[in-house]
Parts: sequence; structure tokens; C-alpha cells
Amino acid sequence: MMRELYFHRDERRGVEKTFMWITEELGELGRAIRKQDEQGMKEEIADVLAWLCSLGNLLNIDVEEAALLKYSGVCPRCKKIPCECVFQ
Amino acid sequence: MMRELYFHRDERRGVEKTFMWITEELGELGRAIRKQDEQGMKEEIADVLAWLCSLGNLLNIDVEEAALLKYSGVCPRCKKIPCECVFQ
Repeated sequence: MMRELYFHRDERRGVEKTFMWITEELGELGRAIRKQDEQGMKEEIADVLAWLCSLGNLLNIDVEEAALLKYSGVCPRCKKIPCECVFQ
Repeated sequence: MMRELYFHRDERRGVEKTFMWITEELGELGRAIRKQDEQGMKEEIADVLAWLCSLGNLLNIDVEEAALLKYSGVCPRCKKIPCECVFQ
């Protein structure tokens, strides 16, 4: 869906600038959290995901598929549900 | 799924440190892109999404739902498919 909406623009913008957009949106998410702005948090977390999908489209990576491949129901490190890794 | 796997740890870690983890993983994604490490890109993009979901769980935000709400098939700014906004 994000591909259909935005790929023509993502492609023109390129990987580097799209990466910068993610960090910009992540900064906005940080500010919304700091200000305890609940509506803002929702919007900014959606924006970070949207830009991550745009980046994935540019890199030919299906973000959801990549995540499901790595986190397929068990922790990829300890293989447990829930995760029992000792690191924090 | 991420909630079941990691919420007990996310909760102990807290919002701030979870936010820091996202930025750390985003940095690793940046490095994988710079090195043109395709396997690394897939893994790191999965990690960024996983940490974003962890943060969402802590903030009681369903990341996918928030994204679908904002990007419901049309661009939230210009309302067009594909997006026709003039800004880059």
C-alpha cells in the first residue's frame, strides 16, 4: 500500500534522504513522548513506520516479512516465549 | 506477538531506554545500508520495527493500527493515490 502511494516519490528522493526522514520523524516521536502528547505519539509512531516502509520499498525489503522472518513467534536469541535472555 | 514475547522486559526497561534502543538499531541499519550488506539491512530493518512495536506496547499504541488509521489508502495530506503533494 505504501509502495502504491509513495514509491514514485521515494524513488526520486533516494535512500539517504529517506533515511534522514526516519530520523526526523523519530525525533518528533521523542518530542511527543516527552510532552506526553498522546495523539502526537500515535501520529508520529505511524509516521516512523510509514517512512520505514518507504525505506524498505527502496531497498526491496518487505518490512513486515523481514520482521516475521526474524521474530517468528520466539525470541531469535534464546528461542523462548516469552524471551528469557539475560541482557537488558 | 511482540507483546507476548517481550512486554515483561519492555516494561522493566521503560520508555526512555526502549527509545534509545530504536535509535541504536536505526544506526545499525544505517551502517548496513552504507556497507551494502543486504542480509544486514533485512535484519536491522526488522529490529527497528521490533523495537518500534516494543515502544508502542509501552505507550499502549498498536503500531499497525496507528499506521492504518493515518495512511488508510490515501495520502493523509493530499488525499490522493498516489500522493501528489508538492513538498519533498
